[in-house]
Amino acid sequence: MSRVQAQLLTIGDELLAGDIIDRHKAWLGQRCRALGIEVVGAATVRDRREEIVAAMTQAASRAQLCLVTGGLGPTTDDLTAQAAASAAGVELERRPELAERLEAFFASRGRALLETNLKQADLPAGAEVLDNPIGTAAGFAVDIQGCLLFAMPGVPREVHKMMREQVEPRISARFALTPVPRRVYRAIGRGESSVQQDVHQRIEAARQRSPGLANVFVHYRARYPEVQLILEATPGPDGAAASAEELASLDPELCAALGRAVFAVGTQDGPAEIGPQLVRHLVESGQTLATAESCTGGGVGEAITAVPGSSAIYLGGVIAYANTVKQRQLGVPAQLLEAQGAVSEPVARAMAEGARAALGSDIAVATTGIAGPGGGSEDKPVGTVDIAVASERGTTYKRLRLFGDRAQVRRGAVSWALKLVWDHLELGHRVD
Amino acid sequence: MSRVQAQLLTIGDELLAGDIIDRHKAWLGQRCRALGIEVVGAATVRDRREEIVAAMTQAASRAQLCLVTGGLGPTTDDLTAQAAASAAGVELERRPELAERLEAFFASRGRALLETNLKQADLPAGAEVLDNPIGTAAGFAVDIQGCLLFAMPGVPREVHKMMREQVEPRISARFALTPVPRRVYRAIGRGESSVQQDVHQRIEAARQRSPGLANVFVHYRARYPEVQLILEATPGPDGAAASAEELASLDPELCAALGRAVFAVGTQDGPAEIGPQLVRHLVESGQTLATAESCTGGGVGEAITAVPGSSAIYLGGVIAYANTVKQRQLGVPAQLLEAQGAVSEPVARAMAEGARAALGSDIAVATTGIAGPGGGSEDKPVGTVDIAVASERGTTYKRLRLFGDRAQVRRGAVSWALKLVWDHLELGHRVD
Repeated sequence: MSRVQAQLLTIGDELLAGDIIDRHKAWLGQRCRALGIEVVGAATVRDRREEIVAAMTQAASRAQLCLVTGGLGPTTDDLTAQAAASAAGVELERRPELAERLEAFFASRGRALLETNLKQADLPAGAEVLDNPIGTAAGFAVDIQGCLLFAMPGVPREVHKMMREQVEPRISARFALTPVPRRVYRAIGRGESSVQQDVHQRIEAARQRSPGLANVFVHYRARYPEVQLILEATPGPDGAAASAEELASLDPELCAALGRAVFAVGTQDGPAEIGPQLVRHLVESGQTLATAESCTGGGVGEAITAVPGSSAIYLGGVIAYANTVKQRQLGVPAQLLEAQGAVSEPVARAMAEGARAALGSDIAVATTGIAGPGGGSEDKPVGTVDIAVASERGTTYKRLRLFGDRAQVRRGAVSWALKLVWDHLELGHRVD
Repeated sequence: MSRVQAQLLTIGDELLAGDIIDRHKAWLGQRCRALGIEVVGAATVRDRREEIVAAMTQAASRAQLCLVTGGLGPTTDDLTAQAAASAAGVELERRPELAERLEAFFASRGRALLETNLKQADLPAGAEVLDNPIGTAAGFAVDIQGCLLFAMPGVPREVHKMMREQVEPRISARFALTPVPRRVYRAIGRGESSVQQDVHQRIEAARQRSPGLANVFVHYRARYPEVQLILEATPGPDGAAASAEELASLDPELCAALGRAVFAVGTQDGPAEIGPQLVRHLVESGQTLATAESCTGGGVGEAITAVPGSSAIYLGGVIAYANTVKQRQLGVPAQLLEAQGAVSEPVARAMAEGARAALGSDIAVATTGIAGPGGGSEDKPVGTVDIAVASERGTTYKRLRLFGDRAQVRRGAVSWALKLVWDHLELGHRVD
């Protein structure tokens, strides 16, 4: 049995003019791989009807499945439904249920429904509607010369929800697919190549144990400062594939190889990031957290409060960008700032302890550093970040030398701040 | 004279399997736009020779220029040179100067040069070498059926250096390029479809004024709650194109149509976002800012401090997630919180005024709201966000009903908070 093949098609001038980084290709590629579908190509075309029609027709000639994103909005440059109708050789038709939904949507917001909005109720004749409960653009499924084409919006969260809830069940109903088990290890505190070096030999040894393990596909994904190690039970030319249990049996040796850096292990979509993991632990253990941020400017608080339910454990924080705020709101002594500089171990410790005292939390984490582009020195170059964590266990501290530009240094410092709270509490790694 | 058209081609299984986010497309798209080249499409293909040849041949039939990344490595799945030779109808030939360079490279690292490494010295006959001083993979330029194809490596920093230093000068030497004027309007506070409705008629009227304006290409880009209106002086089939001055002449009527929502107007790569615009204004006017955040949890501070140089004007803030922090750090009266609820006009005003007093800033902005998924009521549903801005002008306030899930509501509240500071200061719109 050969694998089902898919072609990806993203639509929009903004993707070709450099306005937007196309993340759909990678995300859809991952989903397809997890389902056991092979993506054989991807194309991006402009908001021109004839170019979209040509790309859809070409995709139909190459693959059994075509996943389209973008071009479902209400404006005149949104042409996906029109183009799909042409490629399928049918007309557009207005769907009363979608028109009603749009009317209700606008009425609920007290806004007038315009004729241009109703365009989003026009789908190719015979197409199946894909519900979009979180946006105005419904998706659709339509057959184009024997190829099943799914059209989804361009907004990432709408794509993600529609793919998971509407598209994947339909693909599974249409094709006989064999999902590929995965095992994902998330780590902060190790470089990609050093992780690879350490786990490589253990994986090579494991390959000897069974024909399925011999075929395991290993890859690394780095989103600085986090690294993910991913094992995938892809069948080899001999057809042998590892089971989910066989993959999980490698946990002890791979977690040992990753050492203290690993914080979570899981399957399929992978375990959650460090923020949700930490919030979950604090909720379970009933401990409260506060933050004191200089170089991250609110990013640590933002990452914690991004997690639903974080209000149960996060009291708040002080963004102490100016030294006066470090003094007044956190009680950092002026002479300490003057003698040691704002980016120093004593100041980081004083900020964490000051936030814990001022906000009355069980734990507090503080960041102070040089995000750049200016402000670096030979002694403390751009990327120097001091992080301290205070609790009844005492105060722990780490100096980091982070890599990259201002945005990277700040993002790195946020992830590290959460990881250092995790390490302060000696939480090891969680298995989901 | 019509514009030079380019097709992008990225090569590699890893881009289709979801392991890597393809950032080359956006980066090359930006470079092309700045040069006045129109990117008409992009494709990603697997490491299969015949598929690469087909994609190159198709690109050559569509565009005068094809920019290829990936597939120049030493392994058997690196097939770009072979495929380009096939597409150009020539043989591969070994380049002695490249072979020597590889030998020197390996010798300098004390590693043995393998035959497979010498593969990187084989280029299509007649191709021009593109130096790669920071990697082992040389690029090349070759003519394919009248289309000029540039092959570059897949490593981002090598692509960036080779594009800037090797490819762009050759493109400029070969083609007479005219950058295409653009006019970008950024707005917060209007929906995409309502913006379109209001500006559509004015643009249609403007099309009557000159053959160049008749051809202007209009598009809308929405990143909630921001909407961008973009005019591009693309030449039409008659060759007529608007000048930058003609586009700019539409400012008064388009800004009037966008109303108070528009905050910035600019050219080419577009004006900056609201955060950098606001920081720039505060630096110029010498005013300091503080933040008091509940539902945004640090996101407003994060957005401000993302701007280099923000330390000159941003003192810091209080993330007042728990009511105790609203009381203690911001001086919001307990009875006000109890009587009105944390999400209310009086509390938002008290937070802004409290932050201004506590941190000693000229201006302070406060957010309090219900980001969801829980916490909504009939009276104050999820998406209800109260924002207040305090300064010596007094305190202004707005209640928002934001759309979407927790992440969208929070991101929307951050953009709105900055926009409401902008409006509080009555800054109108800036033209860059």
